[in-house]
Amino acid sequence: MKIYRAGIDIGGTSVKGGLFGPEGQLIRKWSFPTDRSDNGSRILPDTASSIRQIFRQTGLDLKDLAGIGVGVPGAVTDHQTVNRCVNLGWGALPAGPLLSRLMDGIPVRIANDANAAALGESWAGSGRDFDSLVMVTIGTGIGAGLIQGGRIVEGAFGAAGEIGHLLVNEEEQLPCSCGGKGHLEQYASASGLAAQAEKLLASSDTPSLLRRAEHLDAEAVYKAAGLGDPLALKLTDQEARMLGLALSYVSCVFDPGIFLIGGGLSLAGDVLLEGIRRYYRKYAFHASRDTAFALAKLGPDAGIYGAARLIQI
Amino acid sequence: MKIYRAGIDIGGTSVKGGLFGPEGQLIRKWSFPTDRSDNGSRILPDTASSIRQIFRQTGLDLKDLAGIGVGVPGAVTDHQTVNRCVNLGWGALPAGPLLSRLMDGIPVRIANDANAAALGESWAGSGRDFDSLVMVTIGTGIGAGLIQGGRIVEGAFGAAGEIGHLLVNEEEQLPCSCGGKGHLEQYASASGLAAQAEKLLASSDTPSLLRRAEHLDAEAVYKAAGLGDPLALKLTDQEARMLGLALSYVSCVFDPGIFLIGGGLSLAGDVLLEGIRRYYRKYAFHASRDTAFALAKLGPDAGIYGAARLIQI
Repeated sequence: MKIYRAGIDIGGTSVKGGLFGPEGQLIRKWSFPTDRSDNGSRILPDTASSIRQIFRQTGLDLKDLAGIGVGVPGAVTDHQTVNRCVNLGWGALPAGPLLSRLMDGIPVRIANDANAAALGESWAGSGRDFDSLVMVTIGTGIGAGLIQGGRIVEGAFGAAGEIGHLLVNEEEQLPCSCGGKGHLEQYASASGLAAQAEKLLASSDTPSLLRRAEHLDAEAVYKAAGLGDPLALKLTDQEARMLGLALSYVSCVFDPGIFLIGGGLSLAGDVLLEGIRRYYRKYAFHASRDTAFALAKLGPDAGIYGAARLIQI
Repeated sequence: MKIYRAGIDIGGTSVKGGLFGPEGQLIRKWSFPTDRSDNGSRILPDTASSIRQIFRQTGLDLKDLAGIGVGVPGAVTDHQTVNRCVNLGWGALPAGPLLSRLMDGIPVRIANDANAAALGESWAGSGRDFDSLVMVTIGTGIGAGLIQGGRIVEGAFGAAGEIGHLLVNEEEQLPCSCGGKGHLEQYASASGLAAQAEKLLASSDTPSLLRRAEHLDAEAVYKAAGLGDPLALKLTDQEARMLGLALSYVSCVFDPGIFLIGGGLSLAGDVLLEGIRRYYRKYAFHASRDTAFALAKLGPDAGIYGAARLIQI
């Protein structure tokens, strides 16, 4: 009986895998380093070998594997073809059919990794009780995954949820990672916050704990804000304001039942969450003012859960 | 055989109806004035009578009617319950079950009218070839309907597509129709454009055709712009810029395959469409830069088409 599913999360540093049982329980987790040599051509064969090995180790039969879901750091079309994954060395690649062939025809479905993480939280994390959600990942960049009725909203060009690229400052001269200018993630991502901190310190003589920080990063900013440092508080307030405004825009378009906040910056925890929510309630259209907010809870496992959920049993 | 469907579009002035055949062809159209007396309590009985009458006139059997779809000017939950329709005098009303009872149990599904219009354009209008679309209606206000895979995206609070309430100016003192301040529709709706025109004329002595306009409305502005009037051109350019920016936000969230522009202001035609598209391409995230644009084409019939499409046969 086809009652198992595998969820694979391919990242630039490591490939994570999870084997899930009939009720969606995580039976076994594994990971191995991503071999990016030769344009990443070893990644799919390594992945196939790792799945076969897990089945051998657990004494299970591959005949009982309903399918393999895979999250990749890039745009995906039709759950089969990867458009481009710079971090893996992949160009356009029919990753679905390729991996399926390596696994003797077992069905494979692919998704963008941020979308897979959102699907994972929807299935087994903080979004379980909601029909629709937006999971916002705030790390080096800012991305979001949209889920509606248990399915990923991918967008016509695979760009649904690219809220890090909302234009918020038309006067900006410095480029965003995407080549554009003045995008949200230039100010509100972890790296954006660090850049804002540097700029603020340079523009004044106000004493601040941040002037003595070993690394002037997002963690240092939230730590100093926790100690009441005025400049750090100004930065975290601006961070919350920009994200709250951006999420009010998301609600005017998609109106999800809950926003989940994940990614490295979410380690700042409730301070960040409550700050974003306060500004969100200020800016949101009245009908959506009571949208729920929560921190994502699956952490780095969200990707394997969501990848597995791509497979229906 | 249940091969017919009825589409009803209930507005504050009139109720429009359409009877659709097995291939989705419009067989008969009708309309009657909306009786808003007694808190609109006659509207559903009048609607039921009108459907029975059409079936009598056409010699068709009500047994062959698969269902009745209804668009209403208000928020709807679960395709059954109307939250509130100020224009009809309705408070919270289980309009679906009520109409179904009046029609001897024939299934009824209800939707917000802007969403129904978007579904109509998706089914039989300018959006036919696209899996996802956003139809933007620019009239007295600004609203949008989101369609994904032939279905309406309603939002957790029925507020998906409320893009008229994107906050674009935090300094605004005048209130929006919703009670908020500084929302897109205060500047870019037909009435917003007229207000901007008045403000611009008052703030300068520049000669302008608009100073002689009988009614300083959106039509006058586009007419003067067509004749090369500098102030009018400034206004239409600002209009295009605000809408182009707003739609770039919509793409960063939902990334539709096509934007359709409808509503009273869309009578400005290609000038408006091309202006919005030009700014959209300037502001949009690169992946979504080539989103298609078109004018909606079903006009006032979009609502009955979309309402009928709520019924699956």
